[in-house]
Amino acid sequence: MPRWNTVAIVGVGLLGGSIGLGLRQRGLAKQVVGIGRRRATLDSARRLGAITTSTTLLDRGVHDADVVVVCTPVDQIADHVKAAAACCPQGCLLTDVGSTKGRIVSQLDGGLPAGTCFIGSHPLAGSEKRGVAAADGDLLAGRVVVLTPIRGTEPKARRAATTFWQSLGARVVEMSPAEHDAALAFTSHLPHAVAVALALAVPAADLALAAGGLRDTTRIAAGDAEIWTQILLDNRENVAATLEQFDASLADLREALATADRRQLKRILTQAKRKRDALGS
Amino acid sequence: MPRWNTVAIVGVGLLGGSIGLGLRQRGLAKQVVGIGRRRATLDSARRLGAITTSTTLLDRGVHDADVVVVCTPVDQIADHVKAAAACCPQGCLLTDVGSTKGRIVSQLDGGLPAGTCFIGSHPLAGSEKRGVAAADGDLLAGRVVVLTPIRGTEPKARRAATTFWQSLGARVVEMSPAEHDAALAFTSHLPHAVAVALALAVPAADLALAAGGLRDTTRIAAGDAEIWTQILLDNRENVAATLEQFDASLADLREALATADRRQLKRILTQAKRKRDALGS
Repeated sequence: MPRWNTVAIVGVGLLGGSIGLGLRQRGLAKQVVGIGRRRATLDSARRLGAITTSTTLLDRGVHDADVVVVCTPVDQIADHVKAAAACCPQGCLLTDVGSTKGRIVSQLDGGLPAGTCFIGSHPLAGSEKRGVAAADGDLLAGRVVVLTPIRGTEPKARRAATTFWQSLGARVVEMSPAEHDAALAFTSHLPHAVAVALALAVPAADLALAAGGLRDTTRIAAGDAEIWTQILLDNRENVAATLEQFDASLADLREALATADRRQLKRILTQAKRKRDALGS
Repeated sequence: MPRWNTVAIVGVGLLGGSIGLGLRQRGLAKQVVGIGRRRATLDSARRLGAITTSTTLLDRGVHDADVVVVCTPVDQIADHVKAAAACCPQGCLLTDVGSTKGRIVSQLDGGLPAGTCFIGSHPLAGSEKRGVAAADGDLLAGRVVVLTPIRGTEPKARRAATTFWQSLGARVVEMSPAEHDAALAFTSHLPHAVAVALALAVPAADLALAAGGLRDTTRIAAGDAEIWTQILLDNRENVAATLEQFDASLADLREALATADRRQLKRILTQAKRKRDALGS
């Protein structure tokens, strides 16, 4: 028997589509309502089995939902959560998948009807791909989802969100929105900024001589420009701090190169290798 | 019928082993002689089918060779080519797989017996893996091999090396050693330096929150520290120049972030995406 009668997904792209597909493939939701602006996107999501019904009207889409997951770009999430909170049933779990949490969660703190069951989520399952065509029902299997409860978060929101993400195979961890944004600046936003700068630095004429190293290192620079503009701006103070740290690491390496200090250069490369090996493949 | 009677491979690691395996799997060489310092490595290369016989003595190993490929770390290549040139038959093709070419090729220019058939090669098929256990007979299929002829290069060395690499499925391009080193500084050595600095910048405590972006961006930092120390030092002037270019790209991004200039940030991310999309997956 399905665990949820109706799950509504606002924004059926790669992540929203993957959540819907995962729910359906695991028999977890009787109905998955896709809510979006473009009929064509909703139609292909339905053909792919990521959603069972669809609407372009958010208020109608969330009307019978047990769970609403907002998967729109970070600039729109707070507005969409507010709109959903005004129309969804009492007790419905509201959450999102935004890559930044501080501003979104604070905008919603006090901005939702009393008793609204909201908690911020961030599934660490990004990709340079986008769109529902790339959806994968196992995208969250084995991945981490960060929940960012605050003082006012309803305990049942924590429990319900934990159950929801675990049912899709994810591992749930909790931290404050500020801790999340500081950590993700290092593990996601800094790598993105570096990949972008690297892609731009390489002369176009030399791209024919690219091997796996350049491909790997710049892969995320192929991510959607609008989505990443929003993320980097939303977390720009933390990102600036991580860039300072990156500069310091790079300065050590440059110094060793400039002075042809073989021992020091090897020490730096050995430390980096040890850290990268710890990360796994 | 095999194209070569005997191919000798000096240094049977990932690349040397992959060349041997490719020759054997395609029936291109009757004998592949593995030459190395460690018996254990040579024994496992033989078990894996990457070589047919082995020796720890370079002079004995190259004695009957039609082709000698030197696959040792860049600091040792010139010495190994010289040693092989002194013992191999007249007309034998000598080449190497070093990731840097300027110093190696100039050290050998004038330093080899008259009529020696040497040309520098660089197969663009690196990996963060190492060792013969990771060898793959198709490693070079579809990859680029750069040949770096100079004024004194025998025409038959160019032809023989082109045939050799093409027979393993590679696409051969030619450029001067200086052009090679300047281009590879951008497409290989700069990405390595950046991946190392990024791996070191991320706090160890945050690694649990790493997703695909950080994994991709830092993957090559897991490469062998000694091998990469040699490569980066060998090409340090070019690498320093590419770091300047990288700084300039990163400075544009930082400026857009610092001033919260959404249009400019999106323009930068869009340019980077376009360039990365051109590179393919």
